[in-house]
Amino acid sequence: MNLSTLGEFGLIARLHEKIARRGGVQLGIGDDAAVLAPLTSPVVTCDALVEGVHFRRDWTKPHSLGWKAMAVNVSDIAAMGGLPVAAFVSLGLPPDCSVEWVVELYRGMELAAATYNFTIAGGDTVKSGEMLLNVTLIGAAPQPVLRSGAAPGDLLFVTGTLGDSAAGLEIMLASELQVASPGREFLLARHHEPTPRLYEMQAALQVEGAVRAALDLSDGLAGDAAHIARRSNVTLEIETALLPISDGCRDLAAAVQRDVLEYALAGGEDYELLLCVAPDEADAVIAAMQSTRIPLTRIGCCIEREEAPVVLLKNGVREATPAAFTHF
Amino acid sequence: MNLSTLGEFGLIARLHEKIARRGGVQLGIGDDAAVLAPLTSPVVTCDALVEGVHFRRDWTKPHSLGWKAMAVNVSDIAAMGGLPVAAFVSLGLPPDCSVEWVVELYRGMELAAATYNFTIAGGDTVKSGEMLLNVTLIGAAPQPVLRSGAAPGDLLFVTGTLGDSAAGLEIMLASELQVASPGREFLLARHHEPTPRLYEMQAALQVEGAVRAALDLSDGLAGDAAHIARRSNVTLEIETALLPISDGCRDLAAAVQRDVLEYALAGGEDYELLLCVAPDEADAVIAAMQSTRIPLTRIGCCIEREEAPVVLLKNGVREATPAAFTHF
Repeated sequence: MNLSTLGEFGLIARLHEKIARRGGVQLGIGDDAAVLAPLTSPVVTCDALVEGVHFRRDWTKPHSLGWKAMAVNVSDIAAMGGLPVAAFVSLGLPPDCSVEWVVELYRGMELAAATYNFTIAGGDTVKSGEMLLNVTLIGAAPQPVLRSGAAPGDLLFVTGTLGDSAAGLEIMLASELQVASPGREFLLARHHEPTPRLYEMQAALQVEGAVRAALDLSDGLAGDAAHIARRSNVTLEIETALLPISDGCRDLAAAVQRDVLEYALAGGEDYELLLCVAPDEADAVIAAMQSTRIPLTRIGCCIEREEAPVVLLKNGVREATPAAFTHF
Repeated sequence: MNLSTLGEFGLIARLHEKIARRGGVQLGIGDDAAVLAPLTSPVVTCDALVEGVHFRRDWTKPHSLGWKAMAVNVSDIAAMGGLPVAAFVSLGLPPDCSVEWVVELYRGMELAAATYNFTIAGGDTVKSGEMLLNVTLIGAAPQPVLRSGAAPGDLLFVTGTLGDSAAGLEIMLASELQVASPGREFLLARHHEPTPRLYEMQAALQVEGAVRAALDLSDGLAGDAAHIARRSNVTLEIETALLPISDGCRDLAAAVQRDVLEYALAGGEDYELLLCVAPDEADAVIAAMQSTRIPLTRIGCCIEREEAPVVLLKNGVREATPAAFTHF
């Protein structure tokens, strides 16, 4: 069945059935606005995904797309030190889109909501030419961790591995590319179904005052690190030899004869966290995060502000940073 | 200058300058998420506008579009009995879009923010093929007014006049149409720059417990009234002779030889309020709203639920309702 047969209100009713209301939401979909429980420390983020720019319907399963649309927002809330409460989904759908496709998309979104304990509490569904998906996510962060809190001497850590998502994208762009399993599946999953580091951040925050600044890596480490540098008025010095890179990403880079550092430094959509940690508390943070079983890797430190916001240490040589991914 | 010259971060910096931070927002644009002041009674809504579906760039000035994108969301918060606090704007822009166009769009949004006292606190700016604009608006409603609170005996009121926006759209659709000023300008303004009834609703709420249910009219009175009927398990009986219709709308209907009731009952995007008021309190509500100088008109009443959610009384004859506007 396609959407023009079912109609807008039929579709909303069908989707509504699949969605659970969790704590923090008093009234969800169905009125002029949703009603939430009191929020003592609200944090809010939003991310838009556009067909042909951020995803292709023939490359991404709707369930993965739904998951990813939520995950990238959960990642922002995680980086603020918050927990998600309520999501609002605006969906632009071409009239020839199948109802099954949209139901699968919602199943992916609802899986993320169940995994990270929040509610899809409202949204808007409209007709569009290209498919679009905007999620606004409201969370609660009793002690928000900003980009502006870093100081010289802080140590830089990242969660997980870097460059995998860009490597996964490369596999899809170059269909003739021979990449062996399980590296291939790992990289594709990292691109299509990123894991926000929500519980990892919560673990780090158990060490009070240790995490002075944080952000999630969406546009590539080099460019994103510059945001912290500018906001905190420091320079971030990154030792390239320390960057955590997966075997899958290394193999892919070798297959396309590119420097793997391009993926690790400039590849977008990793959704790992970059943390600036007070040096005296670094060991405690490492210990607190051990239970998450996600690697936490020291990759450099904050120094007094220099002209460049980010400096790379590569084989003992200091180097300017490459440009970040830009949307236009 | 077009967007590809200025770049995403250049654009964000340019827009950021124009935006004032008002009460209720502790940290706006520039971090992973915005940080708001505590919200004891949060209400949240969102609306998406898509080029070619909801607007045409050659028909709508960017300033008006920015205003309208905010106004339709303020209207939802108003209908809940709330006041807006913080807006989050996701913008999809074709790369050939001019920076000046986007700056004007933001000026329209910021004018609405200044008029209704809220802050543009965050968003996402992405590339897209067709232009798109999603606004999520967070407000505060100490006593939310839902669609589900109406009871038999309640009187129905609407603010303002009905059908003007659809009549304005008609003028643009039929370029050969001869409609005299000032009716023409009035109808076009009603379509392009709707006025959310925020302060009118606040005035009505001064009469405690009087407004039992409310919604804002976005898809046409007949269809929207059915939402209250279903949620409250009542039938809404509307006397068509009572519907408030502007002279401009009457003239337009005459010019195109259509029944003016089609505009008043099925025309979308009026953003007037439909209120269900306890009968004993109706006079007090009328008195409280007099200071707003916006007409408040009784158009019918709630009765025990019948098979049809909405019944029209037309020249003494009871009639089924026409279908509402549907998005697919």
